[in-house]
Amino acid sequence: MSTLRVALVQLHGCPTKKENITNAITQIRLAKERGARLIILPECFNSPYSTAEFARNAEEIPRGETSVALARVAAETGVYLVGGTYPEREGTKLYNTCPVFGPKGELLCKYRKMHLFDIDIPGRCTFRESAALTAGDQLATFTIGSLKIGLGICWDKRFAELTACYRQLGCDMMIFPSAFDTYTGPLHWDLLGRARALDNQMFVALVSPARDETAGYVAYGYSLLSDPWGRVLCRAKEVQETVFADIDLKMCEEIKQQIPVLRQKRTDLYELKAKQ
Amino acid sequence: MSTLRVALVQLHGCPTKKENITNAITQIRLAKERGARLIILPECFNSPYSTAEFARNAEEIPRGETSVALARVAAETGVYLVGGTYPEREGTKLYNTCPVFGPKGELLCKYRKMHLFDIDIPGRCTFRESAALTAGDQLATFTIGSLKIGLGICWDKRFAELTACYRQLGCDMMIFPSAFDTYTGPLHWDLLGRARALDNQMFVALVSPARDETAGYVAYGYSLLSDPWGRVLCRAKEVQETVFADIDLKMCEEIKQQIPVLRQKRTDLYELKAKQ
Repeated sequence: MSTLRVALVQLHGCPTKKENITNAITQIRLAKERGARLIILPECFNSPYSTAEFARNAEEIPRGETSVALARVAAETGVYLVGGTYPEREGTKLYNTCPVFGPKGELLCKYRKMHLFDIDIPGRCTFRESAALTAGDQLATFTIGSLKIGLGICWDKRFAELTACYRQLGCDMMIFPSAFDTYTGPLHWDLLGRARALDNQMFVALVSPARDETAGYVAYGYSLLSDPWGRVLCRAKEVQETVFADIDLKMCEEIKQQIPVLRQKRTDLYELKAKQ
Repeated sequence: MSTLRVALVQLHGCPTKKENITNAITQIRLAKERGARLIILPECFNSPYSTAEFARNAEEIPRGETSVALARVAAETGVYLVGGTYPEREGTKLYNTCPVFGPKGELLCKYRKMHLFDIDIPGRCTFRESAALTAGDQLATFTIGSLKIGLGICWDKRFAELTACYRQLGCDMMIFPSAFDTYTGPLHWDLLGRARALDNQMFVALVSPARDETAGYVAYGYSLLSDPWGRVLCRAKEVQETVFADIDLKMCEEIKQQIPVLRQKRTDLYELKAKQ
């Protein structure tokens, strides 16, 4: 495998969970028809993004209906499917969780959002995810051939340390199902995606819901995939659409040779330590 | 002090060291006339940026002629002067060093480039600073009123950890005299400057030499200052020019409140440790 076709599936919100799942499955099948081997859904794609709604829509993973449907379509299409995120229930706790299904429909891993979205920009965007959810405390990775991929969710990408921890684990790609708002989106979406990619010399995919001005929380859109040089390989607009990129795995080696910053870190003077 | 006028002095190269110093002094005086209290010069402003030239142009700091001239003009104008960088000799070793002079002409601190510029992009840019220079091993800061400022040089800004160490020390501003080349400049200059600013919620100034297509090493230009939101407050073009920004020190507090990522770091799961 020298290249991998990746599909970023930017989904609009539907009135019901059932319709959201059906819409996702339709788009996954279409992405497979266009050659995608790795298909990525947005954050909170099966239900409204709202602290009031998380409990009502939460499921066990992988037992719940959303996971069952995603596992089935992953097996049917034979792709690697990053199932965006949806609210997960475990005991009395709720998480914002990203599951990954393999080509046989097996659950490869799941990642629970580690940094919860607590923002307060008066008049622009106020949200307190920590009022409803519990933060995760585990990194999660999976592999496609020789490519190791790390998972984060939305707000996580503001924390340079997290992606750097995944780089230490040998990941050459990060995937962030995300839902930035329309104020911080124009300011920070590209910047954070490209910076995580360049600093860590890896591919970075950000996948957002489509924009819906009538929703309670209006997502930014503009799903994108950056290469390890910080160049945007593909980018969606605001509406529902799937964008594709063929990523060349040699590119990580190329930049590591040409801009050898990963070898030049001054671990005699500073060091990032993962504590897991 | 609620705002601070900062001048980024983008200088073109002159044929001799003496002329480079004279040109810098002229531009410093003009910047002072326009109200600047903090004036920043580019990397290697007094001599050609070339491994072959470093030894010939190196001086002791602050004893050498460049330091003496800068100290004098800082005292004359009463400004804080970040003297870009120039080659420093100490015993048998050479460094790429940034000195800072206070309003009385005193040396406030000096910073020696910690990550040397070793790049090899065939046909685009190859340079091996480590063949001629020794890397520094100390952070350096100074203060203007309540504002604490950290120093880095050019390639250092590719290392997210360095700026994060300065954030841990309480710096609300980073200054990077720099000289990116014309291949990585368009790709990475803005991205790195803005990312360091946003990730650490601080002001970040990048100050480059002007572009000179006839030089052995062609600098990018486009000196800029980013606010803590990652927004560019001022930006030069390619020629010699000085650009100004009035930075509002309340802005760091504003973003820390509204996007509280500095409080949300998961130091239970990862931690960046400075070893000094």
